[in-house]
Amino acid sequence: MNENAFGIRAGEIAVELPDHFDASLYFIGRIRTPWRRREDCPKNARESGAVCTIELDPRWAEGLKGVESCSHLVVLYWMDKSRRDLVLQVPRHYGVGRGTFALRSPARPNPIAMSVVRLAGVDGTRLKVVGLDCLDQTPLIDLKPYFASTDAAPEAVVGWHAQPKG
Amino acid sequence: MNENAFGIRAGEIAVELPDHFDASLYFIGRIRTPWRRREDCPKNARESGAVCTIELDPRWAEGLKGVESCSHLVVLYWMDKSRRDLVLQVPRHYGVGRGTFALRSPARPNPIAMSVVRLAGVDGTRLKVVGLDCLDQTPLIDLKPYFASTDAAPEAVVGWHAQPKG
Repeated sequence: MNENAFGIRAGEIAVELPDHFDASLYFIGRIRTPWRRREDCPKNARESGAVCTIELDPRWAEGLKGVESCSHLVVLYWMDKSRRDLVLQVPRHYGVGRGTFALRSPARPNPIAMSVVRLAGVDGTRLKVVGLDCLDQTPLIDLKPYFASTDAAPEAVVGWHAQPKG
Repeated sequence: MNENAFGIRAGEIAVELPDHFDASLYFIGRIRTPWRRREDCPKNARESGAVCTIELDPRWAEGLKGVESCSHLVVLYWMDKSRRDLVLQVPRHYGVGRGTFALRSPARPNPIAMSVVRLAGVDGTRLKVVGLDCLDQTPLIDLKPYFASTDAAPEAVVGWHAQPKG
């Protein structure tokens, strides 16, 4: 049981969730990774060279036409084990309360994760990719081509992260 | 009425949608842009220097703590006017059928768009950003800090896009 996903730490703030949902999602596949427990997942996907497999449901197979020509993809997936009401969180490794929208924590109003992956191969509805750090069997929501022209901002800075800890 | 979002063109393929949804979303705010009709939206967000405003619902206000230190954000939003059953699409400007997952078209099983924006200012629950190309009043789903270390892939190539048209 992971505190950050299921519990609440000193200094964290939860809000009352809205009384209704506004839109709904289909899970369109599953992500297969070597990691079965959250504590086994890599801290930083770029530090892991692990090849993971995206298994797209056959229903959507024709949607992959042209994907093989992409060197990188944007992957959206559902962090289905996270609470959704935290607005201020205290990450274990920082100890300072930060807003949910300043964090990549899975605990957020809409627990959708975004990862940029390198495409290593396509075999039917199975895609081999490098750059994921999620649990095995994570539900897939979307795949998109990554365009360096609009998606790459190598000069970007996250100020709070660049500061010394503590 | 936009063919690509509401209609179907010769060569396009639609599939039967699943008989149930798997997860649900909250709209957490609205995006205010100068564009009221799809044909007015910029073709490429990087070509537009327009400053747009993200209006976060006050419920989530504390989630912004620390966001002001980010130079760039990932914005997820809901393309609520799009059909969800197209797997093969014929974009107007290319004329060749391509898979939905090789395109950034709003028509997709889960019509979630992802944009990388430059943060120009924060005033309470209103964020000024540069880099959006969506319709005014588009529902907001998520905001995340953009980390160059994992999100920037300036070397990325979309092969079909680099090829000559036609």
